[in-house]
Amino acid sequence: MHSDPKRLRELPPATALRLLGSVPIGRIVFTAHALPAIRPVNHVLVDGDVVLRCHAGAALLGAIGQVVAYEADDIDPETHAGWSVIVTGKADEVTGADEVAHYERLLRPHVDLTMEHVVRISPEIITGFELTDVTQDAKDLIA
Amino acid sequence: MHSDPKRLRELPPATALRLLGSVPIGRIVFTAHALPAIRPVNHVLVDGDVVLRCHAGAALLGAIGQVVAYEADDIDPETHAGWSVIVTGKADEVTGADEVAHYERLLRPHVDLTMEHVVRISPEIITGFELTDVTQDAKDLIA
Repeated sequence: MHSDPKRLRELPPATALRLLGSVPIGRIVFTAHALPAIRPVNHVLVDGDVVLRCHAGAALLGAIGQVVAYEADDIDPETHAGWSVIVTGKADEVTGADEVAHYERLLRPHVDLTMEHVVRISPEIITGFELTDVTQDAKDLIA
Repeated sequence: MHSDPKRLRELPPATALRLLGSVPIGRIVFTAHALPAIRPVNHVLVDGDVVLRCHAGAALLGAIGQVVAYEADDIDPETHAGWSVIVTGKADEVTGADEVAHYERLLRPHVDLTMEHVVRISPEIITGFELTDVTQDAKDLIA
């Protein structure tokens, strides 16, 4: 059985952002103790910004002020079809009470800890790609 | 309706590695052009090492020789229950023909491009956590 070949296709930034906003979980990538660090978190897309909530002890608080990457994807483990979107931009803490309250209403916490900090990433670079349907060939290769 | 509170629990390294090896896709985290970078890739766990295949033009080839992080997770977008495992270690290219052939048989390529490079990450730090069942409270909060 053969279907269309699988292909990697770059997505327009607007489409990429829309996809990122369509899922609740992603991964923030930053530097901690001079090492690459990554944490899965919940996000919400608000006016083109990626907004996260984190608790007081979270390692990713060290990312505030850094240029970070944020990735979300939806890739089928079987067929490998799906998409991945990466935004890169500075991570800032949101401190204005009204703004914090606004974002807190939109965000659902990932873990049951007091979520005391709201972090906002303003995308400067948006990269997205789509993996179209995988052929049966890939399965044959590992069969 | 209330179920058990959701909790973040650290996993023993051996359990964490086993979980990482149980899924085919993860994300390599490295530095590219002095910026944090992340790419979803296929992996296989061989003798405690994380092994990836990538094609000649892949951005992550720049990660070779770097200390990188590799993350895999399985988190339910609805309940947020699941796990995340992060290994940190040096990324090396596997060049021995026999070793390359061995790993190539185990790995299923992510995209339909010639996979010319095999990258191996030897974990020096293994971090894993588990998110146990989320209460209904979280849903109420955003309802």
